[in-house]
Amino acid sequence: MHNTPLAALRAELDRLGLQGFLVPRADEHLGEYTAPAAQRLAFLSGFTGSAGLAVVLKDRAAIFTDGRYALQVRAQTDPALWERHHVIEEPPPAWVAANAPPGARIGYDPMLVAEEGLQRYLDAGVTMVAVAPNPIDALWTDRPPPPLAPAVPHPVAYAGRESADKRAELAATLREAGQDAAILTDPASIAWLLNIRGSDVPFTPFALGFAILGAEGGVELFMAPEKLPPGTRAWLGNAVSVQDRSALPAALARLNGKRVRVDPAGSPVWFAQTLREAGANVVAEPDPCLLPKACKNPVEQQGTRAAHRRDAVAVARFLRWVEGAAGHATELQAATRLAGLRAEAVEYRGESFSAISGAGEHGAVIHYRVSQETDRPIRPNELYLIDSGGQYPDGTTDITRTVWTGPDAPPAELRDHATRVLKGHIAIATLVFPQGLAGPHLDALARVALWRAGLDYDHGTGHGVGSYLAVHEGPVSLSRTARPVPIAPGIILSNEPGFYLPGRYGIRVENLVLVQPADLPAAIRPFLRFETLSLAPIDRRLVEPTLLTDEELAWLNAYHARVEAEVGPALDAPTRAWLASACAPIIPTG
Amino acid sequence: MHNTPLAALRAELDRLGLQGFLVPRADEHLGEYTAPAAQRLAFLSGFTGSAGLAVVLKDRAAIFTDGRYALQVRAQTDPALWERHHVIEEPPPAWVAANAPPGARIGYDPMLVAEEGLQRYLDAGVTMVAVAPNPIDALWTDRPPPPLAPAVPHPVAYAGRESADKRAELAATLREAGQDAAILTDPASIAWLLNIRGSDVPFTPFALGFAILGAEGGVELFMAPEKLPPGTRAWLGNAVSVQDRSALPAALARLNGKRVRVDPAGSPVWFAQTLREAGANVVAEPDPCLLPKACKNPVEQQGTRAAHRRDAVAVARFLRWVEGAAGHATELQAATRLAGLRAEAVEYRGESFSAISGAGEHGAVIHYRVSQETDRPIRPNELYLIDSGGQYPDGTTDITRTVWTGPDAPPAELRDHATRVLKGHIAIATLVFPQGLAGPHLDALARVALWRAGLDYDHGTGHGVGSYLAVHEGPVSLSRTARPVPIAPGIILSNEPGFYLPGRYGIRVENLVLVQPADLPAAIRPFLRFETLSLAPIDRRLVEPTLLTDEELAWLNAYHARVEAEVGPALDAPTRAWLASACAPIIPTG
Repeated sequence: MHNTPLAALRAELDRLGLQGFLVPRADEHLGEYTAPAAQRLAFLSGFTGSAGLAVVLKDRAAIFTDGRYALQVRAQTDPALWERHHVIEEPPPAWVAANAPPGARIGYDPMLVAEEGLQRYLDAGVTMVAVAPNPIDALWTDRPPPPLAPAVPHPVAYAGRESADKRAELAATLREAGQDAAILTDPASIAWLLNIRGSDVPFTPFALGFAILGAEGGVELFMAPEKLPPGTRAWLGNAVSVQDRSALPAALARLNGKRVRVDPAGSPVWFAQTLREAGANVVAEPDPCLLPKACKNPVEQQGTRAAHRRDAVAVARFLRWVEGAAGHATELQAATRLAGLRAEAVEYRGESFSAISGAGEHGAVIHYRVSQETDRPIRPNELYLIDSGGQYPDGTTDITRTVWTGPDAPPAELRDHATRVLKGHIAIATLVFPQGLAGPHLDALARVALWRAGLDYDHGTGHGVGSYLAVHEGPVSLSRTARPVPIAPGIILSNEPGFYLPGRYGIRVENLVLVQPADLPAAIRPFLRFETLSLAPIDRRLVEPTLLTDEELAWLNAYHARVEAEVGPALDAPTRAWLASACAPIIPTG
Repeated sequence: MHNTPLAALRAELDRLGLQGFLVPRADEHLGEYTAPAAQRLAFLSGFTGSAGLAVVLKDRAAIFTDGRYALQVRAQTDPALWERHHVIEEPPPAWVAANAPPGARIGYDPMLVAEEGLQRYLDAGVTMVAVAPNPIDALWTDRPPPPLAPAVPHPVAYAGRESADKRAELAATLREAGQDAAILTDPASIAWLLNIRGSDVPFTPFALGFAILGAEGGVELFMAPEKLPPGTRAWLGNAVSVQDRSALPAALARLNGKRVRVDPAGSPVWFAQTLREAGANVVAEPDPCLLPKACKNPVEQQGTRAAHRRDAVAVARFLRWVEGAAGHATELQAATRLAGLRAEAVEYRGESFSAISGAGEHGAVIHYRVSQETDRPIRPNELYLIDSGGQYPDGTTDITRTVWTGPDAPPAELRDHATRVLKGHIAIATLVFPQGLAGPHLDALARVALWRAGLDYDHGTGHGVGSYLAVHEGPVSLSRTARPVPIAPGIILSNEPGFYLPGRYGIRVENLVLVQPADLPAAIRPFLRFETLSLAPIDRRLVEPTLLTDEELAWLNAYHARVEAEVGPALDAPTRAWLASACAPIIPTG
């Protein structure tokens, strides 16, 4: 029975006097992309999806995922060992409360759970016991070492502001709130604050570490010193001290008697627990870097425009190639092709996420990830959906296009669906709205045209995007379930309504947009608008012009004219000619 | 110094060892309309608005209101005694924390504050002390007696369901949640649950009282026995016991050891405090009547349609009269006229709120309440806004129309503003949306047309409406600030976008709508739509057809055709002829 990691973990739990244990997918930064050393859930269960949680009891074990991983979790885990549940329909706290024996002590690793997450188990009446070190680590004999990629300077030519400036501003914020220090556990916050980048995890160019920002503007950075070459050490300056990760508990203990800000949703509960034990006064407030990081400064705004024009060259070449690919290439080959075209730019630093390259029925799998096992040819007369992005030092891109492979014309129903998605996209692209509104208030505007036909899509309309940082960035998103943080100038969001017909096809049109002040002469208060950043043709064959209003058609034609004007001159002649025809105006008949 | 109530209160606070005291406008039911005996804020300060809060410290006193009462509070209170603050811009908890001396003990009447309201003071670090009885009552020598209007049966022909049915359903809900009882402090909940009505306060036909609903379906009703005539006592049946209000503490004490549900936002904190002291386990959950009461049953739905057709007769006669009133009538005379026309229906039971009758610049005062002091003539060539409603045993109405008094044509800018408001109204009237959406997600849809011109309005798009109950009813409203409670079939909401140009004019178009399942053949999930209930012409002179889409114009013409068809036959001949011309279709030119 000890020949599986699950059985070994149970033996360890027995030894610890625990009746259960939580195994989240998260790492110590509660991030989306993690290093192999942090992938305990995959080690224990075999499940490699990017979101999930296992609960191990003495005689049962369950793994909770969302809908996008329902198939994958079945394929990767042993049904004799693991029950599989939907994380929304059967929330783990309720499941534990219902299935653990009365009085059960359930262990958790306080570095892998946020205070708000822990609270949900306590609210459900579960007795939770913090366990350190994580008992899985003792069983995981071939656990990979932690990543030690170097942290490198992120020049002010890209960052737009000196780190000292940012630190001074945040320190003033802390002082005004009567706070002595803030704990930073999100490596993206540290990367932004200190103007550094790294490559410890795929897709997001930050260096894993922790930091304490003091109310006088100094920073204690906790990061393996070998990750900081002399050039980076000098770049950080004297106001930033560097200590090994192992020095963290002692540093927290020194905050005895201080008021310390800890993010209750974004930071591991270990920090609040350790601080409270040390006699600090923990203030539960969001990471102070979140909003300033999200509001890109003018240099970052110029950078993202340049990155998007550069990215658009690769996308245009790719879209032209795809038109001839049906019958000649697979989904995987297409994704590889696009990454290769992006890589021709010297500024390219890699993908911003694993591309979604789905033909036909695969397009309906919202988070489809093509692999050797699932790969299939792109065929004539079907839809092909490609959602991809690049990292460049001046900006992060993320764009989705859905194309009809031809040669026949697409069916009328499909054009109807695609045009309703496009109407939603245009509703966001053309929106002006008063400052103070938040994502939950605007998400519906992208759906009204679909709703009229009884259709909808099961994801948010948009997410925040970083500046040469995470392609999914808080605190603002265009989603009903988001916290109502007001949308502010400088924030980059995606605009990506879609429609998915299971087993048949998926449609999504995604551009990134930059929040800008709107210049409305008669405005009674400050208004905002979205500047569209992404530049690539939207497949005209999928547009049913009679479903568009005059204004919507005018937007589409103006957008295409802009794409041709801004991207065309950077293209080789054949691609430029192709782009001109892909961007030709649609003239309404009648 | 003791010759003002404020000075007398301060002396009383000294005696009690308190450094401050909260004086909310609310009564013991935390309701919108209160009996004179509960109007302590007016007694203390002179301010009679429907929302407000005073904080009395030893050497300062402040009164907090929202924007609609900014002028009124200045007119009614003595600036030598009272500072005046905006309740949103300077929240009272922060003001108390900043202005009370360190360590100050601030008193509050636990019958006048909800648990969530109290928590905001505790979160701000204020030491709060419950005080009973309310020290104001000892000073208020001419305090009116509490109202003793009789509670009367609300027949099943109107209610649509036996009280026993409702009690059995709610009792099952409590049992499923493992709750032994629920505290009901909202008289509207009690009126709905027990199928009774009353007349203790203006506008809302309920009887003031409290109740405990048990998990077996029995109810303990706490209400002065003299308010319950024998017929009502018999109507309540044996499962409902009646005790005087004074028996409440003993009844709560009997819940020792029980799990008792108390609404943390809608019930006075006294209930939770008293229950906890008695050893009960308080579960903080919303009043269990809120959602079932809001979801009108088929009989109530038929009733509201009948009430709206009846109400429409009075409104049509009024609107015809208003066309000739410019130069001949005042705002107050107009409001009186409309109430009189409504009163011609034998079913009329009174206004559902104090009508807003505002000409010209008064229309821009969102909650304008005409009085002898503010009354002014309705003049030619201006806008006149009338927002009013009636109570009928089969339904509650609430309708706003804005009319141009003529004889000249209205200016183009005014027509632009009015048409944008109308576009917002039509956006809601024609909306279909998936079940699960809530008010905060849909409110923006009514604003997009205004936003495009830099305009907006500073109130929610709609509120819930009761069935011969409160004209403002929870838990659902079309508002950004509402809790995201999903909109459900049977709920009645107002649809009332507007636009207000201070000092010039106000525009609002309000109909009530009834949430219905939408019949969309291709729907991928359950969808809902709004059935418009209110039937009155929308002033065609204010419509700029070139700003309307074909679909919007089609909606307006179809609505007007329906108004004529449903209301016309019930009118006298001259009004019917007038209605026909007011409802004539608009034919777009060109």
